[in-house]
Amino acid sequence: MPQLRLALNQIDSRVGDIAGNTETVVRWAHHASARGAHLAAFPEMMLTGYPVEDLALRASFVDASRAALVALAKRLADEGLGELPVVVGYLGRSESARPRFGQPAGAPQNCAAVLYGGEVALRFAKHHLPNYGVFDEFRYFVPGDTMPVIRVRGVDVALAICEDLWQDGGRVPAARAAGAGLLLSVNASPYERDKDDTRLDLVRRRAREAGCTLAYLAMVGGQDELVFDGDTIVVGEDGEVIARAPQFAEECVLLDLDLPAAPARAPSGRVADGLEIRHVTLCETPVEPYPAEFTGGEAERLTDDAEIYGALVTGLRAYVEKNGFRSVLIGLSGGIDSALVAAVAVDAIGAANVYGVSMPSAYSSDHSKGDAAELARRTGLNLRTVSIAPMFDAYMASLSLTGLAEENLQSRLRGVTLMGISNQEGQIVLAPGNKSELAVGYSTLYGDSVGAYGPIKDVYKTTVFRLARWRNADAEARGETPPIPENSIAKPPSAELRPGQVDTDSLPDYDVLDRVLEMYVDRDQGREAIIAAGFDAELVTRILKLTDTAEYKRRQYPPGTKISAKGFGKDRRLPITNRWREGEQG
Amino acid sequence: MPQLRLALNQIDSRVGDIAGNTETVVRWAHHASARGAHLAAFPEMMLTGYPVEDLALRASFVDASRAALVALAKRLADEGLGELPVVVGYLGRSESARPRFGQPAGAPQNCAAVLYGGEVALRFAKHHLPNYGVFDEFRYFVPGDTMPVIRVRGVDVALAICEDLWQDGGRVPAARAAGAGLLLSVNASPYERDKDDTRLDLVRRRAREAGCTLAYLAMVGGQDELVFDGDTIVVGEDGEVIARAPQFAEECVLLDLDLPAAPARAPSGRVADGLEIRHVTLCETPVEPYPAEFTGGEAERLTDDAEIYGALVTGLRAYVEKNGFRSVLIGLSGGIDSALVAAVAVDAIGAANVYGVSMPSAYSSDHSKGDAAELARRTGLNLRTVSIAPMFDAYMASLSLTGLAEENLQSRLRGVTLMGISNQEGQIVLAPGNKSELAVGYSTLYGDSVGAYGPIKDVYKTTVFRLARWRNADAEARGETPPIPENSIAKPPSAELRPGQVDTDSLPDYDVLDRVLEMYVDRDQGREAIIAAGFDAELVTRILKLTDTAEYKRRQYPPGTKISAKGFGKDRRLPITNRWREGEQG
Repeated sequence: MPQLRLALNQIDSRVGDIAGNTETVVRWAHHASARGAHLAAFPEMMLTGYPVEDLALRASFVDASRAALVALAKRLADEGLGELPVVVGYLGRSESARPRFGQPAGAPQNCAAVLYGGEVALRFAKHHLPNYGVFDEFRYFVPGDTMPVIRVRGVDVALAICEDLWQDGGRVPAARAAGAGLLLSVNASPYERDKDDTRLDLVRRRAREAGCTLAYLAMVGGQDELVFDGDTIVVGEDGEVIARAPQFAEECVLLDLDLPAAPARAPSGRVADGLEIRHVTLCETPVEPYPAEFTGGEAERLTDDAEIYGALVTGLRAYVEKNGFRSVLIGLSGGIDSALVAAVAVDAIGAANVYGVSMPSAYSSDHSKGDAAELARRTGLNLRTVSIAPMFDAYMASLSLTGLAEENLQSRLRGVTLMGISNQEGQIVLAPGNKSELAVGYSTLYGDSVGAYGPIKDVYKTTVFRLARWRNADAEARGETPPIPENSIAKPPSAELRPGQVDTDSLPDYDVLDRVLEMYVDRDQGREAIIAAGFDAELVTRILKLTDTAEYKRRQYPPGTKISAKGFGKDRRLPITNRWREGEQG
Repeated sequence: MPQLRLALNQIDSRVGDIAGNTETVVRWAHHASARGAHLAAFPEMMLTGYPVEDLALRASFVDASRAALVALAKRLADEGLGELPVVVGYLGRSESARPRFGQPAGAPQNCAAVLYGGEVALRFAKHHLPNYGVFDEFRYFVPGDTMPVIRVRGVDVALAICEDLWQDGGRVPAARAAGAGLLLSVNASPYERDKDDTRLDLVRRRAREAGCTLAYLAMVGGQDELVFDGDTIVVGEDGEVIARAPQFAEECVLLDLDLPAAPARAPSGRVADGLEIRHVTLCETPVEPYPAEFTGGEAERLTDDAEIYGALVTGLRAYVEKNGFRSVLIGLSGGIDSALVAAVAVDAIGAANVYGVSMPSAYSSDHSKGDAAELARRTGLNLRTVSIAPMFDAYMASLSLTGLAEENLQSRLRGVTLMGISNQEGQIVLAPGNKSELAVGYSTLYGDSVGAYGPIKDVYKTTVFRLARWRNADAEARGETPPIPENSIAKPPSAELRPGQVDTDSLPDYDVLDRVLEMYVDRDQGREAIIAAGFDAELVTRILKLTDTAEYKRRQYPPGTKISAKGFGKDRRLPITNRWREGEQG
């Protein structure tokens, strides 16, 4: 059987940074070539980054991507890499789609190309377009209608992009009909809790359907709310795992494979879903037999808590760095939310770049101030204290605020303080809100919701506790100082906006709240279904009512790392003006 | 020829308020029946409101809509309206779609039904689904695959929903193939500047294609950022306008039509796009000939400025009322933006419900305070003054802020003041930002951008001036007091955050800025195309750079009335983390 050494580049790219991404491809292509690879691959839309959203509708951006692709092909050859076939994702456009009302302007396509010998040897576009959850690809792209196959060193390699594997039909059966010896899919698949397991099952199933080895190359990194966790997988035609890369780490997966020789006469014509086989021969001659050096193996799997924590660190780091910042600012209340955010930030960008502000009011307890100081001591972050008492007094002298208005005032004065420091010194503010309080609106608009990024906005409060305990235990296991003060974990959660206040004055116990929210928010279940699952009807009604009416607050919330299928981001879009109150039905 | 009296109910509905919308349908059905109508129609998704966004994915909501439809049919008959066929939009689901990955959960459909004799006589779903601009219908709906035709009093009436008319193919040619005597389309078509002209051209063209009279029933009202402007149109098969309703007004368009008798044997089978004719006979017997009473006619057309102003008033009124509020709060700087917002608010909900706050700082000019007071005098809105000087001093004593940080502080202290009053007294805060400043980021996050609704966020500054002048002239023509102080219109725009500051210190002249933004934002043109249109390259670069980098600020901006094809709302979605700088290309 012919051999092939694959170089699957599980790396990050930056949305809009076509020049920078080009450099990245060239660098890793040299890396692959130096290690003797016969075929190198890069993730979905590598050249433009992913997702580009409405940039896909701007002709100048599509033109720039297409021009960069041609230039990249030439440059690779100029730098001596012309004989290495490179598969790279980019933003292209359909040449054949006739303009029609309802079609994306300019007929853009989510494309990949094979660069070889200084030329673009083959271009193709994603066939199945996802338009659910965080995806809007019918808004942006015209589907591809070919089954691309390249002959590399005597092996026929069928190509696909991401969703092509997720939906039935299309390129998986087409790869079988085309007689491919390898199906290579390039991806930008956003992280969700447990998605690694789903992905593994999928890849194994699709390999059996395609009847050949399947290489699934994943992107790693972060883009706004999305995290790409990596987890590149190669499985045999029987579905057995040959190689699996780690999550949340850039890496080139090198792998030597024995693959079936290409048929003397490649199949042609239309196959599954009317896809037309586009066969391009790059090189007929198999590689001289060589001793396999890279034989695969699986990176150690993360525990669930380590995985979520890793997603938060990756997401925050990407957001800060890709937006050109170096440091972050966090209001530290001594509570667990801001403590976890601080720990994540320290892990993401280093303690020297993390600035905390303790902003006590008359209602702040001594232990809160102490807990913030203890957090700073444990992590080494920079801490300062700004009392909000004088500003509070100045406002109360002008406006006679009471009740909730008075509570919110304190929170907003902290927001103004953080933004003032941020504008003066250049850090970005992190919002400490978690998914539970965001869901039920237990936060102050322009107060604790102030910030450019909300690292834990998709993390329920019970998970906040779990992650804090996990992070501390992990530190202990390494012989390091646990970052989060035990007292921040142990004490009852409180906003400290009035004397003796605790969260449970206003909210149900978090363990109940979070389970109800998980059914309502993440799984779109209705009131009756949630009650049928064993929850108290009155309590369910109350939680759903709170969630139904807090939509307007979530519209003002900053983005944050997405860890579930449905958080409060672009995967869950509800009207603000909306009279449907699930909590009042039934 | 058989006659038919149509009742086209150009009305509003409320998203999620199924019970309330049901009452509305019953009330207007009685109104139509009392006036002798033979067929009554209601807008797209009348029962649930439109757009329902992710509510479509919640089974309990779909179930509630479907149950309400059946109950409505029975209730209409119980109230003596069983003989009046009623066409009404609702949220349904496909019974035939097999679950598959990538299809919206529960296979929801954008449906309409014909209610007759206490039963649901016919159900059908929108065939063409829009998934561009503000529309995401591939995310929510499974397309319909029938060509519904009802025989009403001896006339075959073909039915369609909104996008079915906009895209080629489908129900327009199918209506011709089905031999329909009337094509009735129910719509919820969001307002855009000049869309009324486009819509008229479309309807005329489609009538000729369908080869029959075409009745286009439009929704009127507002939902979050969307305004529905009405403009119901009926044209003959030659494209000649028979009737046209006003914009921005609820009204039942009654119209007597002579229509061709239905063929003895209705066509059947599959027609255009594979749509299968679903023919239901409600009543074969034509109406006894009667003298036509409602013979059509066109409502007077609005000027462009009156139309935009009408959209702003409609949008704001809907947002306030549908969210259960009665009054609004506006920070009044004496400038033109807040003055126009106040004028719109007064027209929308009455001066007694409009509260203004003048919040002078050390940098506020005397004429600014005077202009705010003059605005209050002219409009009759409620005005109070809260100086932000003491709060400013309290902050500056704790934090040594300079430059932009100091400027922003003043703006944020005003935001906190507005939110404090709002929380205490219950008004919603309106943000005064216009599209020009929103585009280039000339605003303070959590400062002047604070608010639940931004009425003019989709209005360029030059249009702000035009609307202010138009509103004043319109008042004068009626012999009323012009609401906006002449000085607010005449003086150079300034944020007054430092001594002697004017907008042109930081920004190009608004007439140039707005024309460049219109090309860049609304029409997605690139830098080179804009320069080729005759603008200075350096200036274009500067404007595009500002716009490229202000995305994060727009994410924190409240919703506001949409008046253009592409504003800063869900019709324009760009990554926050994004290295593409159109201004730096070329």
